[in-house]
Amino acid sequence: MSKIWQKTAGVDALVENFTVGRDREFDEQMAAFDVLGSLAHTRMLESIGLMSADDLQLVQQELKSIYKDIEQNGFVIEDGVEDVHSQIELLLTRRIGDAGKKIHSGRSRNDQVLVDLKLFFRHQLQETVQQIDELFRLLIELSNKHKDVLLPGYTHLQIAMPSSFGLWFGAYAESLADDMELILAAYKITNKNPLGSAAGYGSSFPLNRTMTTQLLGFAALNHNVVYAQMGRGKTERIIAQALSSVAATLARMAMDQCLYLSQNFAFVSYPENLTTGSSIMPHKKNPDVWEIMRGKCNRLQALPNDVAMMTTNLPSGYHREMQLLKELLFPAFAELNNCLHMAKFMLEHIEVKNDILNDPKYAYLFSVEEVNRLALEGVPFRDAYKQVGIAIEQGNFNPEKKVNHTHEGSIGNLHNAEISAAMNGLLSQFKFDEVATAVKELVK
Amino acid sequence: MSKIWQKTAGVDALVENFTVGRDREFDEQMAAFDVLGSLAHTRMLESIGLMSADDLQLVQQELKSIYKDIEQNGFVIEDGVEDVHSQIELLLTRRIGDAGKKIHSGRSRNDQVLVDLKLFFRHQLQETVQQIDELFRLLIELSNKHKDVLLPGYTHLQIAMPSSFGLWFGAYAESLADDMELILAAYKITNKNPLGSAAGYGSSFPLNRTMTTQLLGFAALNHNVVYAQMGRGKTERIIAQALSSVAATLARMAMDQCLYLSQNFAFVSYPENLTTGSSIMPHKKNPDVWEIMRGKCNRLQALPNDVAMMTTNLPSGYHREMQLLKELLFPAFAELNNCLHMAKFMLEHIEVKNDILNDPKYAYLFSVEEVNRLALEGVPFRDAYKQVGIAIEQGNFNPEKKVNHTHEGSIGNLHNAEISAAMNGLLSQFKFDEVATAVKELVK
Amino acid sequence: MSKIWQKTAGVDALVENFTVGRDREFDEQMAAFDVLGSLAHTRMLESIGLMSADDLQLVQQELKSIYKDIEQNGFVIEDGVEDVHSQIELLLTRRIGDAGKKIHSGRSRNDQVLVDLKLFFRHQLQETVQQIDELFRLLIELSNKHKDVLLPGYTHLQIAMPSSFGLWFGAYAESLADDMELILAAYKITNKNPLGSAAGYGSSFPLNRTMTTQLLGFAALNHNVVYAQMGRGKTERIIAQALSSVAATLARMAMDQCLYLSQNFAFVSYPENLTTGSSIMPHKKNPDVWEIMRGKCNRLQALPNDVAMMTTNLPSGYHREMQLLKELLFPAFAELNNCLHMAKFMLEHIEVKNDILNDPKYAYLFSVEEVNRLALEGVPFRDAYKQVGIAIEQGNFNPEKKVNHTHEGSIGNLHNAEISAAMNGLLSQFKFDEVATAVKELVK
Amino acid sequence: MSKIWQKTAGVDALVENFTVGRDREFDEQMAAFDVLGSLAHTRMLESIGLMSADDLQLVQQELKSIYKDIEQNGFVIEDGVEDVHSQIELLLTRRIGDAGKKIHSGRSRNDQVLVDLKLFFRHQLQETVQQIDELFRLLIELSNKHKDVLLPGYTHLQIAMPSSFGLWFGAYAESLADDMELILAAYKITNKNPLGSAAGYGSSFPLNRTMTTQLLGFAALNHNVVYAQMGRGKTERIIAQALSSVAATLARMAMDQCLYLSQNFAFVSYPENLTTGSSIMPHKKNPDVWEIMRGKCNRLQALPNDVAMMTTNLPSGYHREMQLLKELLFPAFAELNNCLHMAKFMLEHIEVKNDILNDPKYAYLFSVEEVNRLALEGVPFRDAYKQVGIAIEQGNFNPEKKVNHTHEGSIGNLHNAEISAAMNGLLSQFKFDEVATAVKELVK
Repeated sequence: MSKIWQKTAGVDALVENFTVGRDREFDEQMAAFDVLGSLAHTRMLESIGLMSADDLQLVQQELKSIYKDIEQNGFVIEDGVEDVHSQIELLLTRRIGDAGKKIHSGRSRNDQVLVDLKLFFRHQLQETVQQIDELFRLLIELSNKHKDVLLPGYTHLQIAMPSSFGLWFGAYAESLADDMELILAAYKITNKNPLGSAAGYGSSFPLNRTMTTQLLGFAALNHNVVYAQMGRGKTERIIAQALSSVAATLARMAMDQCLYLSQNFAFVSYPENLTTGSSIMPHKKNPDVWEIMRGKCNRLQALPNDVAMMTTNLPSGYHREMQLLKELLFPAFAELNNCLHMAKFMLEHIEVKNDILNDPKYAYLFSVEEVNRLALEGVPFRDAYKQVGIAIEQGNFNPEKKVNHTHEGSIGNLHNAEISAAMNGLLSQFKFDEVATAVKELVK
Repeated sequence: MSKIWQKTAGVDALVENFTVGRDREFDEQMAAFDVLGSLAHTRMLESIGLMSADDLQLVQQELKSIYKDIEQNGFVIEDGVEDVHSQIELLLTRRIGDAGKKIHSGRSRNDQVLVDLKLFFRHQLQETVQQIDELFRLLIELSNKHKDVLLPGYTHLQIAMPSSFGLWFGAYAESLADDMELILAAYKITNKNPLGSAAGYGSSFPLNRTMTTQLLGFAALNHNVVYAQMGRGKTERIIAQALSSVAATLARMAMDQCLYLSQNFAFVSYPENLTTGSSIMPHKKNPDVWEIMRGKCNRLQALPNDVAMMTTNLPSGYHREMQLLKELLFPAFAELNNCLHMAKFMLEHIEVKNDILNDPKYAYLFSVEEVNRLALEGVPFRDAYKQVGIAIEQGNFNPEKKVNHTHEGSIGNLHNAEISAAMNGLLSQFKFDEVATAVKELVK
Repeated sequence: MSKIWQKTAGVDALVENFTVGRDREFDEQMAAFDVLGSLAHTRMLESIGLMSADDLQLVQQELKSIYKDIEQNGFVIEDGVEDVHSQIELLLTRRIGDAGKKIHSGRSRNDQVLVDLKLFFRHQLQETVQQIDELFRLLIELSNKHKDVLLPGYTHLQIAMPSSFGLWFGAYAESLADDMELILAAYKITNKNPLGSAAGYGSSFPLNRTMTTQLLGFAALNHNVVYAQMGRGKTERIIAQALSSVAATLARMAMDQCLYLSQNFAFVSYPENLTTGSSIMPHKKNPDVWEIMRGKCNRLQALPNDVAMMTTNLPSGYHREMQLLKELLFPAFAELNNCLHMAKFMLEHIEVKNDILNDPKYAYLFSVEEVNRLALEGVPFRDAYKQVGIAIEQGNFNPEKKVNHTHEGSIGNLHNAEISAAMNGLLSQFKFDEVATAVKELVK
Repeated sequence: MSKIWQKTAGVDALVENFTVGRDREFDEQMAAFDVLGSLAHTRMLESIGLMSADDLQLVQQELKSIYKDIEQNGFVIEDGVEDVHSQIELLLTRRIGDAGKKIHSGRSRNDQVLVDLKLFFRHQLQETVQQIDELFRLLIELSNKHKDVLLPGYTHLQIAMPSSFGLWFGAYAESLADDMELILAAYKITNKNPLGSAAGYGSSFPLNRTMTTQLLGFAALNHNVVYAQMGRGKTERIIAQALSSVAATLARMAMDQCLYLSQNFAFVSYPENLTTGSSIMPHKKNPDVWEIMRGKCNRLQALPNDVAMMTTNLPSGYHREMQLLKELLFPAFAELNNCLHMAKFMLEHIEVKNDILNDPKYAYLFSVEEVNRLALEGVPFRDAYKQVGIAIEQGNFNPEKKVNHTHEGSIGNLHNAEISAAMNGLLSQFKFDEVATAVKELVK
């Protein structure tokens, strides 16, 4: 392959294969974002006199055409071309000749990759946010729908207190709302412009980084150019941490589902075509989707550690293995989005059992309720406690199997509206519309 | 030990020792926060008629007295007392008799621990924020002070481009500003009220959770009671992730320091009494502080994974091992604060070398500068490139060893004011004063 | 504190506190092993003419006396003394004057610490092996005792096939036998002599490392002196991996226990004083021991990663943070041994339920059994399958609730003798007696 | 797709895609091993009367033909076929009709997968062992070749003592020998037969598991059938730990290489076509291969944690996500082997610098040497020390820049023969020939 830095002596093929690895495969996913970066960069170059107005017009026209082509038909790096940047330059020079090569002025490969990654991650995070929001709204809906259906609440995996499907679904909704706080932090750290940092030490060209920041819809600059480079690996780790938090929520829900589907609980069920089974074990409804989801999400939980292990103790400055982080992060977005989508799909078909607490083994669930009821009626607490204890001991404990919880966030007062308001407050802080406006302006 | 739940048969001593472990040691750190929780809880109890005004007055007076005592003299759990909650109840009942026992109405041990942890973590995070801010301001100061001192910039650990101490110090400052975004997210997730969730399934008492939220200065409720319990382990993991990000910044700085102190770089030095050495190896200045800091910070980088490994695949509901998370988190705050403090201490004494680039091995640093300079003078880029290449090849390359970088975030335009503004913007979002006001009101 | 390397200028107290940290606390555990190292080293020094016979006699006599004192009374590092090595030298010089200082010839602090750690780890691993073996033998005993008691076997947490307590207990026994393979590997890697590697680059003294290897009962040398130093961190990681494997076995068993103790399974129970409960929730038997064990063991599972994170990407040669690995490894041995001990204690009191399979929900467990029975009687497999399927569908499926499994490792043929033989085969490879003989010879 | 367990209702396509994932891609790598398993299983079936001699002959003949076809042409799972097992059954029934279906008697999909994985892992480990051995032998060769070339030895990254390329190369060789101890342990744990454990609870058929153990060349049985199933995930974790140890050795070597290639060290170099560079930065020799290797190996260091995170806290019995472990382990073998191969390739071209210690900054390296030399000549140690200290202070320190180390494992006595003997001792314990003989017998 032809490379910008190439010396007379070529690089050994074995070396080339080993160091390039799966990079081209991931690069293809960044193509549209690489074009966006070049659209902004060239407009800036022209504004500071490093590109002529004529060249700019040519370049912009063709880049926009390539962008639309990628949107419609995807992108392929041809054999023998090193990476996405070279491929786009190739497409450009085929069409407009040497003017196409001028898009590299005032940039290094390092900050070009950095900005591509930021734009790609920003886009992926937006998709993740939308998937989370959809699942969130379904969970709130299920919580409201089943708010009166009771199930046992466990502590130490021991039957403890009455709970409800309203609480159970709602808890996972609220968990996603807290996870969104981390996604927002990761988004803010991502949505800053590294372009102009060159190889990590800046440039002697009078670049206007504020201009590219605005054109690309970034909320701010990665100011210090050494830090802009240092953000590689760090951005990935922080995104991985945010994704891992969502994954942890899904994994726990998946574990609950597997347990509740077990015949020993039998709290929920699913239509036959969403589980696997056996004709001679008709009871068997293997929760394969939830098991695979649990596995995928637990793997995502280990992801931030993978990133940390690869970047720890490296001194500042670029190191080639930074490129390998794509192999970790790129599939992670797809995996998590896939899991969010499947969780939603499954929950759309969940059937909850209405009479769980009729089983006598759940009778003692109500002992605390009963003590509290007596206490509220004026019986001193210790007497109430004793009274219930004796009834249980003598086998005379026949509680009324219902609960009257009224405080905020309890069975009778789920606070789902408040939880939704909290989620909406977070969603509004992403300001995706500002990004969309900037991108639309760039490619129009 | 005497326990609320105790049945006739006592618990085996071996079991007791194994399950309690180091818990009492950590509980002592939570004592002041446990009192705060009780001050708010009892005021709420009285407001809903579950405690008489007289009892309230007695209880408040003694709790405030205990609080002041803890602030002045610390706190010790007596032998034979199970935990911080029992010890405080004991102190209370010694002074005011049975009224002291009423503070437990409408609470379970679970949500009492939850709220103690939240208050403790909130307090610790505030200390961390202050330490980060101090280090941040020193780094900005050093960046400004040494902004004209050049050093080599590396890529692939190969000498690449001119950099400066201004950039180097400033990069770590900006890194801390991004880390603060995560600390803020963790703080927001922490600063929500779990009190009233009881054993994780709510209560039949008509608790006013909004009231305790306000009294304790929480910004919001953990609404859903099942989620309030689910927050245990999750809060710890998210805090650990935030701390790990600061740790990663420090660890990288420590690695740079160790490298730059090596005789093979010799970019910085320290007074003799801050390093260790040997009288027959007078060159030796072992950077023990930075090495230990690197080790401690790398251990902190592994902390979120430790938390995840302990909580993964546990179904919802309380499990006893949640208690062990204290052993992970409590020392972590102290370790990180210690590292932040030592980093600041060391940097206050750092000496930077002024003439690094006089060493001939750094001459090629300026080759790209020279090409760009020619290009800016109007020489076509490829000609400029060729011209410099030939000069180098023929041994005639004598670059002017200075740089003229002007764009945002570069050697000549560090953007330290902008970085400081970003940090200050984040700091203002913590609203520590609102918490302080609430706490002051509670204990006055 | 007074230090060998000390230059005129003392080290700042803040630096000293930060870098020494908790080191002295761990050093006390290494005292006896430090003495062993010196006993061997000085005999070697004398053999190569670097210590006089008279000095050797003095030194040996006092070192043996110190050793016995440590064995009987433990060891304390006095205030103002830096570490275990200085404390022992101090004790020695108090008694025999300057001769005591000669024990440092031909050694550096680095290889002295290395050999102390190897001896300490070797000793700890031996204790772990003994604890594992005791638990193993109890599990085999329980497996044999309850070999005829059936319980449901699950796949996907769905009721699947008949299993037995014989299989369940026996599986964990065999798991420990496989874990022992890793412990053995870790032991072999540990049981090699690093003494004589000095600061990691060897010595110009004509040391006889083969002699100290034999005196200390090591099975071999860490030959290459650079590798001897490189073994620090690596030995710790490999030991941590071996311990983590045992921990994983215990953690899984603990999870099974917590599940089987849940009222939704109710397969096992424990005497009241080994669980915690509540007088108004008489059904509650919280499995606190198993939960804490699960937590501790999962933390141990994360330990190898902690070690790796602290050592990754460090170039070869000693780095000061190696010292912090003591904080990770030393408590880990105690934790695991504690867990092994408690697992044994609990299992000594386990009660298994004999009539589990009478519950109608377990009827379908026998459907595969029934198909196989018919097939063995000559009914073609597909016909047998169909016949059972129809019986189930029509509600006529009344299987004989017993199993007749005869093959190796099945319910009726547990192969516990073979599993024990495998364990014994591994145990014999440790050759602890050879170590004991060497140590006894050294201190006699 | 058609599945054995299929009920009337098909499984939703979305569910199918999500749960199958990339499984078929990995299954293709297991095809040959699946055939081996069936060859052994059917011979055993015939021996216990569950397959006729005629059917056996048919089946064996066709399976052997399929095996040879796989060896020559690879294996493809056709569209619409679920997995490798179904594909092989399909090939079989196309050729020999219904007899092909009988190979499933007395097996479940679970133990079929288990045995395929064990055979695949065993094979992969053998390849890894061979790659390690090749690299080991090259390192020993380089160590011997460059045994007299000195380089500085560092502690704390500070110049400390003389070292040599002989020591440096040899240290990594010995590190691989210790890693081999772990590979051997992993191999022994892998090389045990799970076949006959059915779904994890054994079978009512009178299987002869000892027979399949011998036919497949396994060294032993996984006896207990519950443990055989429990080995899934555990085997993967232990293999990952063993691979991670080799990876840690390579990663550290890669870090050393990157450092030593830096112009600030310049201890080694490589031909131009093995590094990347720039025509205007002629000094630049980016060590991309070593950086990528460091990254890949650090990722492998995180692998055991990934496996643990996915399996922790799962109760005993099969869970569907076990299947996802293929995605972690299968590529890991290829990555590590690739790294081992590239390390060997690079080291075959390494050039070491002969005159490193002529640089005046390395003079103090010899201060300890000089003290020891004087001491060996009879000067009391403290006097010798003082004498050298004064010479250094007065600028009169002109050491003879050579070393005379003679003890085991030192510069002058590398003990490479002993290290090689240790490696060979380990290699002989794998007994690959016994496996080869068994496999050859099965397919002949």
